Amino acid sequence: MNQKRTWTAGLVVIGDEILSGRTQDKNVAALAKWLNVQGIRLVEVRIVPDILERIAEAVNAVRAETDYLFTTGGIGPTHDDITVDAVSAALGVEVIVHPRARAMLEGYYKDKGGLTDARLRMARVPDGGELIENRMSGAPGIRHGNIFIMAGIPHIAEQMMDALTGQLEGGDPVLSDTIGCWTAESEVADILGAVEDAHPDSQIGSYPFFREGRVGANFVVRSTDADQLVACMNALSEALVANGQEVTPGGI
Amino acid sequence: MNQKRTWTAGLVVIGDEILSGRTQDKNVAALAKWLNVQGIRLVEVRIVPDILERIAEAVNAVRAETDYLFTTGGIGPTHDDITVDAVSAALGVEVIVHPRARAMLEGYYKDKGGLTDARLRMARVPDGGELIENRMSGAPGIRHGNIFIMAGIPHIAEQMMDALTGQLEGGDPVLSDTIGCWTAESEVADILGAVEDAHPDSQIGSYPFFREGRVGANFVVRSTDADQLVACMNALSEALVANGQEVTPGGI
Repeated sequence: MNQKRTWTAGLVVIGDEILSGRTQDKNVAALAKWLNVQGIRLVEVRIVPDILERIAEAVNAVRAETDYLFTTGGIGPTHDDITVDAVSAALGVEVIVHPRARAMLEGYYKDKGGLTDARLRMARVPDGGELIENRMSGAPGIRHGNIFIMAGIPHIAEQMMDALTGQLEGGDPVLSDTIGCWTAESEVADILGAVEDAHPDSQIGSYPFFREGRVGANFVVRSTDADQLVACMNALSEALVANGQEVTPGGI
Repeated sequence: MNQKRTWTAGLVVIGDEILSGRTQDKNVAALAKWLNVQGIRLVEVRIVPDILERIAEAVNAVRAETDYLFTTGGIGPTHDDITVDAVSAALGVEVIVHPRARAMLEGYYKDKGGLTDARLRMARVPDGGELIENRMSGAPGIRHGNIFIMAGIPHIAEQMMDALTGQLEGGDPVLSDTIGCWTAESEVADILGAVEDAHPDSQIGSYPFFREGRVGANFVVRSTDADQLVACMNALSEALVANGQEVTPGGI
């Protein structure tokens, strides 16, 4: 058994626009993939409305269980952007204007009408916070200890992830490999269970689909150990072939 | 002030595939939109891994705060499909094989190799559960009181929502209208706040974007009262025009 420490992260998505169905969230998947590469596992996501107490409560609940906490959304200049206030309340610290964030925003808005009160909102941080800079917008993200406050707009959030790449302590990255079959997953459910039981360092996920009028499924093996991953995938592939399945390495 | 009762729902998304970034969730947005039409507001989403205790804990935490609880994912035939077990644990009831679900699966699989043990897993329900039938797959969803256990595959989940349309008591549907401007939201943040303050029965959301090399934002007014919605939207539109903005009704 692999007894190495597993590093974990949680994400609080702040946004009425996600809960109303208006906006399709893309940050969960992007953060999850980025965290995998950092050797950190995303283990919980909560999507909460733009209500200060609800955000603060979720931040404290999730960070109590995880090594790192991320938030996305609610850091713009408008009245409904209250993430900094909520995280400050959760931490029990004051909201301050960060001098460097103010200077960055002054530069960014110099030829765009100047730094209004609304824009200055984006320089506010929980006291003790550092900036996560990005090239896409004047407004930085914020790091406060193991809390990372990120933008809601996906490509700005991704810029902030880029800025954090390699900065967070993690474990071994999660490796994965996929195999696909044009079969109902119920046909091979017993095989999946048996192979996973025989390979305790790997997990097998089953992802059924309907496509081109046929049922199929992809089976994803995950492990932090490359040798174990190969052993589990080989065993799965052999068991599927022995069951009469045609397998597609890499997935369908 | 509108003092009518607000009906609320929570969603627990069950799936390592979402937390690993492998699969882009689509059920949050689809359920949110469907709930809006039922007069029910989605107020919290939790995405949890395929771990029984974590699912059960999230189910109990979220249903304690909401009128309805939905789950998506984890109701297939494989070893990682443990939603029924987790909800049963959360409710403190036994898992039973539902006779009608068994009969449905027997029919569905009659010419597809018959009802194996793995497939029979899909007939299991928390004791007291009723079926949510759907035309897309042999496996039904499950209703247990105010808990709704739905498929993870989006088009099957949507079939289950269709089957539930009009079945859930709700309040007035949330109405919305959108207006767009090619402006930085920071330019008009004060206007948004002032108009919202003057219209307590409406909420204004601001959704900035970068498109075609320019910044813009859509402003969404939401209310359960049609007259209040129109009044708030008119006030917002007039205030934006008075600020020198060109507005696009319906959004950009």
